[in-house]
Amino acid sequence: MAASQVTEVSKAKSFGGWQKVFQHHSDVLKCDMKFAIYLPQESETKKVPVIYYLSGLTCTEQNVIAKSGFQRYASEAGVAIVAPDTSPRGCNIEGEDDSYDFGSGAGFYINATTEKWKENYNMYSYVTKELPAAIETNFNIEPSRKSIFGHSMGGHGALICYLKNPGSYISVSAFAPICNPSNCPWGKKAFTGYLGPDEETWKEWDATELVKSYKGPNLGYILIDQGADDNFLKEKQLLPEAFVDACRVSNVPVVLQMQEGYDHSYYFVSTFIGGQIQHHAKLLKQ
Amino acid sequence: MAASQVTEVSKAKSFGGWQKVFQHHSDVLKCDMKFAIYLPQESETKKVPVIYYLSGLTCTEQNVIAKSGFQRYASEAGVAIVAPDTSPRGCNIEGEDDSYDFGSGAGFYINATTEKWKENYNMYSYVTKELPAAIETNFNIEPSRKSIFGHSMGGHGALICYLKNPGSYISVSAFAPICNPSNCPWGKKAFTGYLGPDEETWKEWDATELVKSYKGPNLGYILIDQGADDNFLKEKQLLPEAFVDACRVSNVPVVLQMQEGYDHSYYFVSTFIGGQIQHHAKLLKQ
Repeated sequence: MAASQVTEVSKAKSFGGWQKVFQHHSDVLKCDMKFAIYLPQESETKKVPVIYYLSGLTCTEQNVIAKSGFQRYASEAGVAIVAPDTSPRGCNIEGEDDSYDFGSGAGFYINATTEKWKENYNMYSYVTKELPAAIETNFNIEPSRKSIFGHSMGGHGALICYLKNPGSYISVSAFAPICNPSNCPWGKKAFTGYLGPDEETWKEWDATELVKSYKGPNLGYILIDQGADDNFLKEKQLLPEAFVDACRVSNVPVVLQMQEGYDHSYYFVSTFIGGQIQHHAKLLKQ
Repeated sequence: MAASQVTEVSKAKSFGGWQKVFQHHSDVLKCDMKFAIYLPQESETKKVPVIYYLSGLTCTEQNVIAKSGFQRYASEAGVAIVAPDTSPRGCNIEGEDDSYDFGSGAGFYINATTEKWKENYNMYSYVTKELPAAIETNFNIEPSRKSIFGHSMGGHGALICYLKNPGSYISVSAFAPICNPSNCPWGKKAFTGYLGPDEETWKEWDATELVKSYKGPNLGYILIDQGADDNFLKEKQLLPEAFVDACRVSNVPVVLQMQEGYDHSYYFVSTFIGGQIQHHAKLLKQ
């Protein structure tokens, strides 16, 4: 069955539009996948822009649709929001369910090259190509008006999808992204497992390294919200300062909003997701 | 330990205020209880009004704080929101965890009279007296400015707390409340268990019966949002028409907003909770 054949799993009306979940078979991941899509009311009569939201470690498509409250802002802005799952599921790879930060729930939005993982763990191809194709085939979406954002591991995913595909996404933003995975414990574990020990191969999947070597057209500004009391910031898992330094050297504009008192949770995401959606919507509707 | 001695379990900054969870020992329930409180930023410098939110079957204090997105509206309105748990916990009563709609997670906000349940299942006294006393002792709350609302079983709870205490609450509203528990499967099961088989004793805990016999001062209008595609409405668990009929006969003003296409979930609650909070805040701040 082609990835463009999608089956509705659930639907609920929300802020005048519909929060739906679908299932389809992914060819690049070789498994069945779920994704969520919020369709604002105006998608009933015309094509609307779309923002892809990539979630963090341990999440499925459910977390952001239940906890972030984004539907209000997507409804107001008249944009669709697509939220994929965070990894392939049920691939029967030995050890796939052993860790919260590797394997199931932790696909890191890259294409694996190691023998054990490369057949299934191709989340980069899934979120940048296969899923958008399925979305554009099945829903009332403007294919040329898309943006991307995400949280934590998903913030890393959003940044690399944007930087590796100049011109494909109108804008990018992130909540507490893993900015420099080559230099933090989560990233080193994931990249060693999915890509192997040669750190040179990690560079094409690391937002800070991609900014350093960026040669494409001028970019609009990259928007990041970061909680100042985020424990993972203190534990040096996120490293936004490395990303901002690289942007400064490469002349890539970035706005890092340090949010006093906020942590890493969906209470932080829900507080600032309205501002990020408005940022995208303004550019998507120009 | 007195119920007024509360211990902080968690906190997260949200929309400029704080979403906190506390634990305390309840004397009327004879067990430890958790409750959630959202404190808007302005509570740091002055006393603020408070709205009590009563949750539905199977919920704890977590559901509404994670899923409804109310913090944005409470922050804008400058009101605190208190969300108790839905039943006593861990009382070691035989069968307390056997059903989703009776016992744990299903206290129905009444005071039990049957031998087996009356020692612990006194959620009415807890939410109308013991919890407000603890809130007023520990937080920067105006004791005389309080309102109440709730969802499903908690909508039933909000309506009876309001009708049984004329003048105590400034206003009341509900999402898809169980309006006439004496005449629906959920209510019959709960009332038989907690109150015994004599249906005459059920009347003082049934919002529709309380409206029929209401003799207090004139009331402000009761606001209800009800999803028109709610399966529990179709299954006759909610019976808003019986409540509205009783209000008409007793001259109690009620506004029932039937919301086309919406179901019973938090996607429904989150869509309309802003409107209900604005309704309360307007009256609380008069």
